[in-house]
Amino acid sequence: MDARGYHVAVVGATGAVGQQMLQTLEKRNFPISKLTLLSSERSAGTKITFRNEEHIVQVATPDSFEGVQIALFSAGGNISKLFAPEAVKRGAIVVDNTSAYRMDENVPLVVPEVNEDALKNHNGIIANPNCSTIQMVVALEPLRQAYGLNKVIVSTYQAVSGAGAAAIQELNEQTKAILNGDEYTPEILPVKGDEKHYQIAFNAIPQIDKFEDNGFTFEEMKMINETKKIMEMPGLQVAATCVRLPVETGHSESVYVEVDQQGVSVEQIKALLKDADGVTLQDDPSQQVYPMPAYSVGKNDVFVGRIRKDLDADNGFHMWIVSDNLLKGAAWNSVQIAESLVKLQLV
Amino acid sequence: MDARGYHVAVVGATGAVGQQMLQTLEKRNFPISKLTLLSSERSAGTKITFRNEEHIVQVATPDSFEGVQIALFSAGGNISKLFAPEAVKRGAIVVDNTSAYRMDENVPLVVPEVNEDALKNHNGIIANPNCSTIQMVVALEPLRQAYGLNKVIVSTYQAVSGAGAAAIQELNEQTKAILNGDEYTPEILPVKGDEKHYQIAFNAIPQIDKFEDNGFTFEEMKMINETKKIMEMPGLQVAATCVRLPVETGHSESVYVEVDQQGVSVEQIKALLKDADGVTLQDDPSQQVYPMPAYSVGKNDVFVGRIRKDLDADNGFHMWIVSDNLLKGAAWNSVQIAESLVKLQLV
Repeated sequence: MDARGYHVAVVGATGAVGQQMLQTLEKRNFPISKLTLLSSERSAGTKITFRNEEHIVQVATPDSFEGVQIALFSAGGNISKLFAPEAVKRGAIVVDNTSAYRMDENVPLVVPEVNEDALKNHNGIIANPNCSTIQMVVALEPLRQAYGLNKVIVSTYQAVSGAGAAAIQELNEQTKAILNGDEYTPEILPVKGDEKHYQIAFNAIPQIDKFEDNGFTFEEMKMINETKKIMEMPGLQVAATCVRLPVETGHSESVYVEVDQQGVSVEQIKALLKDADGVTLQDDPSQQVYPMPAYSVGKNDVFVGRIRKDLDADNGFHMWIVSDNLLKGAAWNSVQIAESLVKLQLV
Repeated sequence: MDARGYHVAVVGATGAVGQQMLQTLEKRNFPISKLTLLSSERSAGTKITFRNEEHIVQVATPDSFEGVQIALFSAGGNISKLFAPEAVKRGAIVVDNTSAYRMDENVPLVVPEVNEDALKNHNGIIANPNCSTIQMVVALEPLRQAYGLNKVIVSTYQAVSGAGAAAIQELNEQTKAILNGDEYTPEILPVKGDEKHYQIAFNAIPQIDKFEDNGFTFEEMKMINETKKIMEMPGLQVAATCVRLPVETGHSESVYVEVDQQGVSVEQIKALLKDADGVTLQDDPSQQVYPMPAYSVGKNDVFVGRIRKDLDADNGFHMWIVSDNLLKGAAWNSVQIAESLVKLQLV
């Protein structure tokens, strides 16, 4: 780095997550000497103001990464597969927010509150986990450390912004149309490239990403496999059901978790989470205090509440975990990884 | 009954469920010789057309039930507690859609597909279970019969119509206000009588009904206790997390269930549910076929899909259960109970 900081590239700068990455870099006052904004051909030429300076988004090519030290990728898995190795070849460290490299055993999959140390084993690429995985492991890691984990069953309540800016637009326009009694043909959700599209306004769609042969969706398998990798618990039992809601931003999760130890109390778990990194405990039923997606937007933390002991299993607990999927679920976790790289002198 | 049928009273005739009860009685061509429509003072005087005849809603008094043979109650627990015994005293059989008598050991709690025979032990009052309980037990009963049940963990995705007509209005007006950038002060949801009210549009609220001391809500405890009573399985392990969504009508449930038997396949469960009473199987991931609330409205059946075997527990299965909460969850189940009473010659 020079005196002012690092040469940083943001790939996918015009997308929903890319925009949040730039805002987060600004807010965190990340040390940047030079900023390179990249995108696909479609969005190239867009003007973006960063720290009061206008930048013009360029088409990404291998040579775009000359001199780049940190490259934040969020432009889809194909772009990452094409350009991340080119960036690494030119000396950059890549923080990739797509699923392209997450399960690659040579690539650390990192949530700084959970496995920051895994960064030390990077080979140029670091993967940012799936949004719904990140918020869950942040809430579960303190339990794992204190009591061990045995089983996790999660049902998600996911916002449309996880499917990109076009999905947000579809939710808003479709909602207006339904309230006005107008026709609206769904074209984006649940999965843009799939054959069928369904109404999302005033509905819940139990499909996020495509289906695998085992009946689980890719999103569900991401939560299952990434959780095991991040927590380094290949034997952890994890199951997920992922559902898309008419919520713009903020993912929620209803989580059942079994710890290894017997006799743990709700009060102990609340005390753990109250002091946990990256967690805000919002849990006071008597005052109707619990996390909600609409009230989590714009905040970096993971919010946890509704913590209850299972009425049958002494080691079973239920909780409700909410976070801004564009921030901790994506942009903030990526910038946080970059901050950890600086702190650990890995860049 | 006389030649044309029974003297039927509907208590709460102007409410969201009462309206659906009248429509369902019409659709099913239920044998009615005389119809008495009752309500609180506030709604008395309302004119309602039933089978092309205009009826005027009367204020409910004990004497309103003179000569009534079947009384369908859906006007809140207090009204049921006040008038159900009066109706019984005058010779009526009461089908009560409130929580007033559900856990009373002298009152059968009935879902006809599951425990129709329990009607034979009635003492004048029959309770209609909570909406989210009904759709779940309809889907689980075939599994119980074939393989036994051990554990159920459910996370719900519930529509606002479960909280009445005022909640529907709040969702619609609040959604419009947010889309127009206007202010809107929540006054109904999550619980009308509670101190705090939260935005429901584009949000998810993890509170339905008030909280009990154990941290579970009354709605969650209803699902837990009613499921055990209906299935006559006091030892069944049940846990619930209940969440309100910006959906007008149609409750969804993500259910994890463990059967007693090992080695059961998804195909066996699909075959069971395909032939089960009151169930429509909608489960073909390759064609993106699965149940959704917006597409269940106006239908009597319980829709089941996304059936998957747990990746760790051989006896564990995940499924997604959807139904119209005003129909199978309320009005249709009540009318169905009345039909069973006729069929079993209990009235």
